[in-house]
Amino acid sequence: MAEGKLEIIPLGGVGHFGMNMMALRYQNVAIIIDAGMGFPNEDLPGVDIIIPDFTFIDEYRDEIAAIVLTHGHEDHIGAVPFLLKEIDVPVYGTHFTLALLENKLLEHKLSDTAQIHAVETGEKITVGEFEVEWIHVSHSLTSCAALAITTPVGVVIHSGDFKVDDTPVVGPTIDLKRLTEYGDQGVLALLADSTNAERPGRTLSERAVIPALEKIFDETYGRIIVSCFTSSIHRLQIIFDLAQEFNRQVCLLGRSMLRNVEVADSYRQLDIADGLLVSPAQARQMHDDEIILLAAGCQADPMSAMMRLATDQHKNLSVEEGDMVVLSARNIPGNDLAISRLISHCYKRGAQVVDSSTARVHCSGHGSQEDLQILIEAVRPKFLIPIHGEYRQLYRHKEWAVGLGIVEKNNIVIFENGDVLALDERSAEIIAKEAVGRTFIDQSYGEVEDIVVRDRKHLSYDGIVVPVVAINPTSGEMESEPEIVTRGFIVEEAETDFLEELKEIVENTVNEASHEERIDHSVIKEKTRLALKRFIQKRTGRRPMILPVVVEV
Amino acid sequence: MAEGKLEIIPLGGVGHFGMNMMALRYQNVAIIIDAGMGFPNEDLPGVDIIIPDFTFIDEYRDEIAAIVLTHGHEDHIGAVPFLLKEIDVPVYGTHFTLALLENKLLEHKLSDTAQIHAVETGEKITVGEFEVEWIHVSHSLTSCAALAITTPVGVVIHSGDFKVDDTPVVGPTIDLKRLTEYGDQGVLALLADSTNAERPGRTLSERAVIPALEKIFDETYGRIIVSCFTSSIHRLQIIFDLAQEFNRQVCLLGRSMLRNVEVADSYRQLDIADGLLVSPAQARQMHDDEIILLAAGCQADPMSAMMRLATDQHKNLSVEEGDMVVLSARNIPGNDLAISRLISHCYKRGAQVVDSSTARVHCSGHGSQEDLQILIEAVRPKFLIPIHGEYRQLYRHKEWAVGLGIVEKNNIVIFENGDVLALDERSAEIIAKEAVGRTFIDQSYGEVEDIVVRDRKHLSYDGIVVPVVAINPTSGEMESEPEIVTRGFIVEEAETDFLEELKEIVENTVNEASHEERIDHSVIKEKTRLALKRFIQKRTGRRPMILPVVVEV
Repeated sequence: MAEGKLEIIPLGGVGHFGMNMMALRYQNVAIIIDAGMGFPNEDLPGVDIIIPDFTFIDEYRDEIAAIVLTHGHEDHIGAVPFLLKEIDVPVYGTHFTLALLENKLLEHKLSDTAQIHAVETGEKITVGEFEVEWIHVSHSLTSCAALAITTPVGVVIHSGDFKVDDTPVVGPTIDLKRLTEYGDQGVLALLADSTNAERPGRTLSERAVIPALEKIFDETYGRIIVSCFTSSIHRLQIIFDLAQEFNRQVCLLGRSMLRNVEVADSYRQLDIADGLLVSPAQARQMHDDEIILLAAGCQADPMSAMMRLATDQHKNLSVEEGDMVVLSARNIPGNDLAISRLISHCYKRGAQVVDSSTARVHCSGHGSQEDLQILIEAVRPKFLIPIHGEYRQLYRHKEWAVGLGIVEKNNIVIFENGDVLALDERSAEIIAKEAVGRTFIDQSYGEVEDIVVRDRKHLSYDGIVVPVVAINPTSGEMESEPEIVTRGFIVEEAETDFLEELKEIVENTVNEASHEERIDHSVIKEKTRLALKRFIQKRTGRRPMILPVVVEV
Repeated sequence: MAEGKLEIIPLGGVGHFGMNMMALRYQNVAIIIDAGMGFPNEDLPGVDIIIPDFTFIDEYRDEIAAIVLTHGHEDHIGAVPFLLKEIDVPVYGTHFTLALLENKLLEHKLSDTAQIHAVETGEKITVGEFEVEWIHVSHSLTSCAALAITTPVGVVIHSGDFKVDDTPVVGPTIDLKRLTEYGDQGVLALLADSTNAERPGRTLSERAVIPALEKIFDETYGRIIVSCFTSSIHRLQIIFDLAQEFNRQVCLLGRSMLRNVEVADSYRQLDIADGLLVSPAQARQMHDDEIILLAAGCQADPMSAMMRLATDQHKNLSVEEGDMVVLSARNIPGNDLAISRLISHCYKRGAQVVDSSTARVHCSGHGSQEDLQILIEAVRPKFLIPIHGEYRQLYRHKEWAVGLGIVEKNNIVIFENGDVLALDERSAEIIAKEAVGRTFIDQSYGEVEDIVVRDRKHLSYDGIVVPVVAINPTSGEMESEPEIVTRGFIVEEAETDFLEELKEIVENTVNEASHEERIDHSVIKEKTRLALKRFIQKRTGRRPMILPVVVEV
């Protein structure tokens, strides 16, 4: 503990995207800002989400006094339920942020016990020597905030995710006035979103996608199918508004779409006209020019509503000839190939496809370089600390800020997850390193050890079949029934008949072999492997790994 | 066989990128156009390349009379050695295309026996009733050709990979005059590259990257590190020219960079000033402003020179503070995350990074919509058949061509790999389907069955350990020594001592168990698993899957 200093410790979200989490610690009181999840690539089969390693939480559990949330995106709140199972502390956020959290708490059976406290922007809470104020910012989601945290060594401002949107669709603009007031009083440190620090200029307003979407709606006589991020509240409102303008009704598809629209509606983040929404059953009865399908799955996740629509896997509806499919989203890196396949599926079915490469149907929720400039000019911090991004974005953020000349170059600090940055009025320096990392979560089972993830990787295709025979090396006779062990191939308990057939195959193979073959392990193993392989392939079309074992008894 | 009709059968490269290969068949003579490889994603561990399935080749081996090559890119020639092992037929291509092929033939020990015939553009060869002429086209590689194939039912033109570059750096412009002459005489079908069919306008000339690169060279006082595709001959020439202009010398890094530059130089595709090239040892001795490192690895392949430079894995050189790194390439979909990490590595080491998102340091080698238009206007085919692309590109190509009004909509045919398209003067129809698919190749071992690929996937992490014990169900005694089988964990033959230790662990575990535990399989299995797990982890730090088997004898 640095005496008389404030410690800022990023526990996730620095040097990579997602899994945002940070601790602020002064003397023996700490607060946690956000606790988000990350999403695994396909190199982690069976892992649904990733959360930050909680070693730090465990070590400082007695000091942690509160969790404060900037906004309700998964990468900022997704780890909160897991965190609350470790430390039962109050959670503060805006009403809508907590409403999005509520669903997660319900799933984790925490909604009765969690200490949830809604705050309004402009409101302040006190935790030990910290005073935290929520300040409204623009983003693709609504009810998002920056946090102004007054500490004994000065004010720290955490931008949350933000852009400077002068004409948002839902809610007010970013509260630059309040940020400037803090700036006038003096801000020690600004922790600012670097996601788009490589992009020149200003990020477009949420409203900027309206003309392109309006043109599409105007020119389309068939069905319109829109897929976007289900938390893009402004985007959803635009679709609902255009639906009314063009006399179409909207059918929501996908669990997260239904849930997010419901929550946003009940918290007045969306304004949905009575009777605008229809069910899939109703949608099927309607004329093509009367309907919009609004589907989750813009990243082409195989189980998503959009992917099901495009591949005939949806129980009610599918992409058909004459449909206009609008992918109103960006491609998250790593998803390009899947999205490309989704688009090909739609074309193959005779639909038209528009995405952000062909029309302005998407804009980012994160500020570009000039948005960052506006924030820095308002806050004028002594220290600037880029957060939320890979190193390349953090670096470009620093480089851009250096060029602005508002913060001294030496006072712009890039740190890594786990670095303990000790701050006082005069200095900022990294004084220690805390343990950080990733924890894998399977949403059905909870935490998954690395080893299990690897097993799943082994098994993520057709699994493994291990036939075992015990053979007397002299007589060549089998000394027991063959054993069959499988993993990731079939549910053994549910397919005992099939397992019996496999055993028979092995038994027959050994019995039909000559004495010489039976006492030569390599021969009998290969015969067994081939026999099982042929049988399994014929019966199931699958090709598990077959690893015969011969035991001499 | 469709009597009196020409059959066109795509064997790869339609509906996906890469692995381009096609058969043209008339009566009982067939020619193969290109035989390319594809590159596996990381979901195929241990697979180096993918080639087309050769079932068709096998079936029609007596009819196939020649292989004709459009150009020397891997996705057009990479499967030729494998094909020549199946069918020993003459191979025709331009001198430089065959020079690029020669290296592959050497690796496969085919250079003595392969029947290689170099042709010049403008030259014709005759194969049965086919007459083939090579017509020069622009591309990122040089010495590239379209093929004009005169058949008994009419002329078929295959574009190869092309763009319309009015100011190439190396070699002549696309021979639109010759293509127009064919158009004047009447062309039955045009098979045309669809890679950039979604992009409006014209593709930039290879020369278009010079201003941005010149600016970088002009403003950089430190070392310059450029990474680009090693087959981008125009790009390489630009770097060599700029090196001279700015008094720098060039150090080539990476096997494919060295090889491609050497071949291109010896075939006069590159003009390299005497003394321009230096070795890594020389480069290390030179001042920062005297050197350019030209490295393979623009896609951030982990073993590439560029990635090694950025991660201290290169034996001589590394990215250092003050370096200017130029990624003069596009991101191939699927590689974004790896390239992003590469860029972060460079920034972390204090280098500057410029890529195509921040400056015009790359241009595509494939024609955009207006390039496609120029080709269609020159050739004016009766039938247009989009090739080279996913369905989305083929579809957009068709859509764009329909808008041009030169080819009748019904005469623009999208087909899939394996479709047999029968053509005569009046009609084009898909009459049958041939077997197509992918064959996996491990460059060390040759063909790999799907099952082995999956095994490798299982084993691509820490592998599997299967301990087997035979236990008498009554006495609870072990009836034999334990067996240990592993896959993907250790080389058993090389670590017999370690295997013996594992057997001891199993033996001790069973011996130390109580009678009850020994006759309860689930208990003894779990004890064995835990004992092995602990031991293996302690000794190796690795965590293979451990799948104990108990046999009752």
